[in-house]
Amino acid sequence: MKVAIQGELGSFSHEAVRNMLPRAVVVPCARSAEVFERVENSSVRAAVIPIENTLAGSVAEHFDLLLTRQVFIHREFPLRIRHNLIAPPGLTLAEVRRVFSHPVALDQCRSFFRMRPKIQAVPFYDTAGSVRHVIAEKLRDAAAIAPAQSAQQYAGRVLLAGIEDDQQNYTRFLLINKSRRVGRGANKTSIAFGLKNQPGVLFKALSVFALRDIDLSKIESRPMRGRPWEYVFFVDILRGDDATARNALRHLAEIAEFVKVLGVYPATNSSSI
Amino acid sequence: MKVAIQGELGSFSHEAVRNMLPRAVVVPCARSAEVFERVENSSVRAAVIPIENTLAGSVAEHFDLLLTRQVFIHREFPLRIRHNLIAPPGLTLAEVRRVFSHPVALDQCRSFFRMRPKIQAVPFYDTAGSVRHVIAEKLRDAAAIAPAQSAQQYAGRVLLAGIEDDQQNYTRFLLINKSRRVGRGANKTSIAFGLKNQPGVLFKALSVFALRDIDLSKIESRPMRGRPWEYVFFVDILRGDDATARNALRHLAEIAEFVKVLGVYPATNSSSI
Repeated sequence: MKVAIQGELGSFSHEAVRNMLPRAVVVPCARSAEVFERVENSSVRAAVIPIENTLAGSVAEHFDLLLTRQVFIHREFPLRIRHNLIAPPGLTLAEVRRVFSHPVALDQCRSFFRMRPKIQAVPFYDTAGSVRHVIAEKLRDAAAIAPAQSAQQYAGRVLLAGIEDDQQNYTRFLLINKSRRVGRGANKTSIAFGLKNQPGVLFKALSVFALRDIDLSKIESRPMRGRPWEYVFFVDILRGDDATARNALRHLAEIAEFVKVLGVYPATNSSSI
Repeated sequence: MKVAIQGELGSFSHEAVRNMLPRAVVVPCARSAEVFERVENSSVRAAVIPIENTLAGSVAEHFDLLLTRQVFIHREFPLRIRHNLIAPPGLTLAEVRRVFSHPVALDQCRSFFRMRPKIQAVPFYDTAGSVRHVIAEKLRDAAAIAPAQSAQQYAGRVLLAGIEDDQQNYTRFLLINKSRRVGRGANKTSIAFGLKNQPGVLFKALSVFALRDIDLSKIESRPMRGRPWEYVFFVDILRGDDATARNALRHLAEIAEFVKVLGVYPATNSSSI
């Protein structure tokens, strides 16, 4: 089973696939749009995409693509983000003078650098790519900060594990697929909707859930193209495909300009808002 | 009057300052945190920061900084984003083979590149910085995509003006200041609040405005640090500092864990949600 990810092999997306579908063949893609296209044209069976991180927030581009592409969310998975110092085999910690990684990862390991003033942080385009780089270039003074998966991928050695500052660092990944299947135990529904430019309309839209005691776990807004200062809203409701949810969505359709159901799947996290 | 911006001279932030405060001395800063620190420690009088773009969406980092730093919004200004092809003096359009710019700007000028397949798009860290680069390096085949302000700043020549694909491209800038002044004609209030993890709590929070016929124009959510899958909400209400708004905020404080008023200022755009 082929599963597309955005970015390099050894990335956190790759790690998420390993957790969700241990036997999948991972197909790395340079751009997110390509990941969605491959799902749409069936050149892969599914894709795994990050949608939000508990420190950095939402991945805006993936919300936009869920809205416009014909894909459906089948599962979610919260991956604990553990940053590791990974070096070419043979290099010791005392020899490391430069550490390559994506700027977000470098920023999430500030205490590591504060405690080691002789080590320089070097921004690189990708976490897993930085491991590949220090190993392929046979750098004798450089390591990388990246997921454990990338040490395995590029035959690097983990010198230090879990060097992130904040352990409450999770990324929620979604498994997307072309088929509109609702799996067993599905108790969460992701939707997108647009609203008329009208006072109180967002409140009315949320009332269709509140009046039926349906909890929300997430709301996100994205700009509507061509209509400055208007928004598309993305909402996750903690409810599967039952009569109450269907009534709520029918009610929402009376208020909204459009409603799109992005997926109905089992919830793994359940904070209510 | 010194006004800080993030990024280089000649940037869209610089252009926004020119519009809002024509006689200000602009102080460029490498990082956004530095911009806010300079306002807090009074080494500048004010700062101008982008907060949302009608195509790309919110500038997440600036929402986070408005929450944690002691600054206050005094004005907003929607700047029309016009991308221009800017070259070293003497270079003609026919000689251009490479065009440098920030990836977002390159992506917003796709039809320019589609119509000119011989011209290569080259990603660069900054729009204005790309103008400075092609001029300082005396490149004889390269131009940059950047704001008109940067042609003036670095003595470049505008070869083509307004090459962006989508003319509904605006960035809303905020003027921030250390003083908690509410200016004349202020009819918009920006607030941030945190909510208890409780079913229906967001709906209750928004009811304090809806029940008083107070319109919203924007809602944004950002992750709460250390509390996975919980959020801080940022809301703009179309109301100044009057009795009704004060009652609504007092009511909100009953529901929310905290409420912070980020600024009370005159609205320039007024779509309601």
